Amino acid sequence: MRMLGRRYYNLIAVLAVGLFMCVCPDPVESRTRNKNVAERRLMSLYGNTPHVEALLGRSRPTPDTYKTLRNAFFRYEESRSLGYDLELTDRELQANETIMAAKLHEYTEGLLTPHLFKPAQHIFDVLDGIRDTQLFHFLKKMPKGAVLHAHDTALCSTESIIKLTYYDSLWACLQKDDLDFSILRFAKTEPQAQDNCNWTLLTEVRQKYGAENVDEYLSEHLTLYPTKKFEDNNAAWSTFMDIFSLLDGLVMYAPAWGDYYYNALQEFYDDGVQYLEFRSVVPTLYDMEGTVYTALDTVRIYVETLEKFKKDNPDFIGSRMIYAPIRNTNPEGVLSYIETLKEIKAQYPDFIAGFDLVGQEELGRPLSEFIDQLLEIPEDIDFYFHAGETNWFGSSVDENLIDAILLGTKRIGHGFGLVKHPVVLDMLKKLNVAIEVNPISNQVLQLITDFRNHPCATFFADGYPVVISSDDPSFWKATPLTHDFYIAFLGIASQHSDLRLLKKLALNSIQYSSLPTEQQFEALEKWQAKWDQFIADVNEESPNRGSSSLHLD
Amino acid sequence: MRMLGRRYYNLIAVLAVGLFMCVCPDPVESRTRNKNVAERRLMSLYGNTPHVEALLGRSRPTPDTYKTLRNAFFRYEESRSLGYDLELTDRELQANETIMAAKLHEYTEGLLTPHLFKPAQHIFDVLDGIRDTQLFHFLKKMPKGAVLHAHDTALCSTESIIKLTYYDSLWACLQKDDLDFSILRFAKTEPQAQDNCNWTLLTEVRQKYGAENVDEYLSEHLTLYPTKKFEDNNAAWSTFMDIFSLLDGLVMYAPAWGDYYYNALQEFYDDGVQYLEFRSVVPTLYDMEGTVYTALDTVRIYVETLEKFKKDNPDFIGSRMIYAPIRNTNPEGVLSYIETLKEIKAQYPDFIAGFDLVGQEELGRPLSEFIDQLLEIPEDIDFYFHAGETNWFGSSVDENLIDAILLGTKRIGHGFGLVKHPVVLDMLKKLNVAIEVNPISNQVLQLITDFRNHPCATFFADGYPVVISSDDPSFWKATPLTHDFYIAFLGIASQHSDLRLLKKLALNSIQYSSLPTEQQFEALEKWQAKWDQFIADVNEESPNRGSSSLHLD
Repeated sequence: MRMLGRRYYNLIAVLAVGLFMCVCPDPVESRTRNKNVAERRLMSLYGNTPHVEALLGRSRPTPDTYKTLRNAFFRYEESRSLGYDLELTDRELQANETIMAAKLHEYTEGLLTPHLFKPAQHIFDVLDGIRDTQLFHFLKKMPKGAVLHAHDTALCSTESIIKLTYYDSLWACLQKDDLDFSILRFAKTEPQAQDNCNWTLLTEVRQKYGAENVDEYLSEHLTLYPTKKFEDNNAAWSTFMDIFSLLDGLVMYAPAWGDYYYNALQEFYDDGVQYLEFRSVVPTLYDMEGTVYTALDTVRIYVETLEKFKKDNPDFIGSRMIYAPIRNTNPEGVLSYIETLKEIKAQYPDFIAGFDLVGQEELGRPLSEFIDQLLEIPEDIDFYFHAGETNWFGSSVDENLIDAILLGTKRIGHGFGLVKHPVVLDMLKKLNVAIEVNPISNQVLQLITDFRNHPCATFFADGYPVVISSDDPSFWKATPLTHDFYIAFLGIASQHSDLRLLKKLALNSIQYSSLPTEQQFEALEKWQAKWDQFIADVNEESPNRGSSSLHLD
Repeated sequence: MRMLGRRYYNLIAVLAVGLFMCVCPDPVESRTRNKNVAERRLMSLYGNTPHVEALLGRSRPTPDTYKTLRNAFFRYEESRSLGYDLELTDRELQANETIMAAKLHEYTEGLLTPHLFKPAQHIFDVLDGIRDTQLFHFLKKMPKGAVLHAHDTALCSTESIIKLTYYDSLWACLQKDDLDFSILRFAKTEPQAQDNCNWTLLTEVRQKYGAENVDEYLSEHLTLYPTKKFEDNNAAWSTFMDIFSLLDGLVMYAPAWGDYYYNALQEFYDDGVQYLEFRSVVPTLYDMEGTVYTALDTVRIYVETLEKFKKDNPDFIGSRMIYAPIRNTNPEGVLSYIETLKEIKAQYPDFIAGFDLVGQEELGRPLSEFIDQLLEIPEDIDFYFHAGETNWFGSSVDENLIDAILLGTKRIGHGFGLVKHPVVLDMLKKLNVAIEVNPISNQVLQLITDFRNHPCATFFADGYPVVISSDDPSFWKATPLTHDFYIAFLGIASQHSDLRLLKKLALNSIQYSSLPTEQQFEALEKWQAKWDQFIADVNEESPNRGSSSLHLD
């Protein structure tokens, strides 16, 4: 019934809207139609756009015609939105009602008291409030598929990082005579002197200042809290980079490296993520025996850890790495990256997904400076470029979007500036290149304040290939993916976007992963099993809802 | 030479980009091409979008091919931007260099110190700083054409409004025993008692508290200063409405009504605006003789005042009124509006441009509630609807955009939510319906914080019909139009957008006005004369620049 109903309306929609568009004068046609001198002269004054249409009248429809047309228009516009092409089963329709009730509860409350609407506030103020909502409860349980945009050492919860600092032989470089350090290092004996470093075992630091205070200090310096308003995007980035350096000595300790990755996989899996495609700078690790490690060792530890994790969790799909070294380098630097890239590809062809360059785009070099080198990269290695993570329209960072697409990138990381590039947008659709949207990251790094203005609303409304991801959830204490899904679904998407959008986002995350076709089947089977369970659970929680009155019927 | 150059590149652009697009698989085609079961099965799992393209490789071009393609791509994308269709004369090209130098000075400074970039800050903090810039200096002088979106009693500078309060027999309703009043009224003797009103002649109030303090009190209560962060959009609107009510008793005094309008025309004219198409609620005026006024009298005063102003300023183009009563009413209310509308149209057919409904969309009724009545309006009366002045995607206010376009509106007031409505956007272009963008108003009324994220960037980038306007400049102490032009040109448009965009915006403001074709000729002649003078002045100011190296050559 319902399905028939929708198809019927789509038919009307296309016909009616098509008809309406025909009734209206086509600028170009009428430009050639109206040949009188006056108008041609006016046109020459105005440039190529015609003026006549603005002055032409149209006869008003009857109220009935209007209402049919209006109804059709809404369905026609909806038919362009992301996820509309999915047909929900009856059980999914029932679950959809439950989930939409939870969403609309917050949306309508927001209309009445806008300042309480969570997606209109800073994530630091609403992180826990979001956790308490019914909508978050459902999204957390939902199998969300894959995370395709996240960075190697920004994955884990603060708690699990602090656990690593309890490993033996970890030293802190105390700067003044109080609880203040920004470098950590594992060593059997006091590490080599470093400028104004008073190396002290962290165990001693904990004895002196109290474990609680040390852990609090760490937890404060491992996230961007509490600063909600940095002077600008640059200031946010520099704090951001400080966190990475505090982490380096800790996680680059070979034994900790594997543990960090295992914990990350566990936390993502527990958050409903079955596949993780992360970017890694592939740092050189160290240990207390002075072993000399190479980039390949770093990757080997990833691969071995992943195998172990998959054995422990059979319905986990897997994880792959995008080799993504720092963009703030020179052409020679890129050439050496390419050598490493080839080695990794040769040794671990199934683990490496492709190549990218990372670090703040504004302060790094634009892709255009590395064209010659990037074109040298073997064609069996794909690109997954960061591009357009900026609001400077027409800047070189903004224009990375054009180089990314011309270089044949498989996905675009962020693409915050895409709405200012109509031709790139056309090509994204045409080439089926996905946009990796990281809502919370964009707010914390000062690109946007109110999520209701996030450019992803345009991507959702016009059915662009989008995946929702989390970038660096560790640094803002967010769940691996659920908080970003909550923001995207409630704060960025339309009030009317429903389970079809959520399901589409999950499917997209597998479809646009680097997994080859065959592996996508297994992936989808593992996801589908969890999805069916999720739908059953939701319906069990609220069995009383019928499946009849979906908002769009 | 230059022109030829550009045409040549456009040719390459279309060819090269077209070629590039062809080389790449078309999703639909390849969906039908790849017939094997596995892929069809995957597709059924993913919905209608194909997955194969995401996995297809493309051979990398040579560096030379890449650079040609890249160059072509940039020109192709630029060819879609607003104003690109205009060809500048050599003298205009020379002026363009001077103006772009002023723009790029601020843009590049902004890249280095983003927090100092004026369009990234609140207008209250940078209003005067903007006045001091070289760019503002040029934009102020530029003949900007018309203002097509502004409201009857929010036009004049605070100074000129305060002058009106020096007229004789103006009483203030003092509430407590201190300098505090929110109602003013002209009367020969103390006005009729009103709840807790201690009516006092403003002259006496000035004697008691000092003229300076009274004027300061007024200036504070006639604008939204200093509040930069209202709790939400609703809070901003209520303060906003308070200003209107403080103004009512003052400007609705028949003699003041004409003077206010005359001053407004003068201030707009002095700011480089030659035509004003404003919205008016057409209030019923009063005087001290107890004369009974009608809506027609209100319009008559407008018309007489306009005649006088045009006599005093021969190269002023003119002014027309959009009758725009309060939307927070019921269907009966709209019917009575329509009666008034017909009377005005009958009496002053050349002064009335059309019909609209005003007031905060969120708190008023959506257009959809008045369809039957609106369709009754005679077809020789055009619509100029406010729509989508919101960031609530999928709300009834957001959906006013669809009713506005289906009702055949000639322009859309604000259209802030348009980027979330792809089909409405398609129709805007197809039907040549202009978007009235009011940047500063959107910030002050809490829709946006950083202008670099304003949706108008998309309109500029993809050549939508746009006019820049100022809405209620009086309430934020902005110039009648120049501040909004500054924000649009530096903060919203691309770094590369130049004099062609500025000229296009001026031309659009006349093209999309309600003026009939013949009158547009005169209008353009009056504008062109000032434009030529403007170009000459700019070139005289900086005669040393060549006209050879426009950024895009």
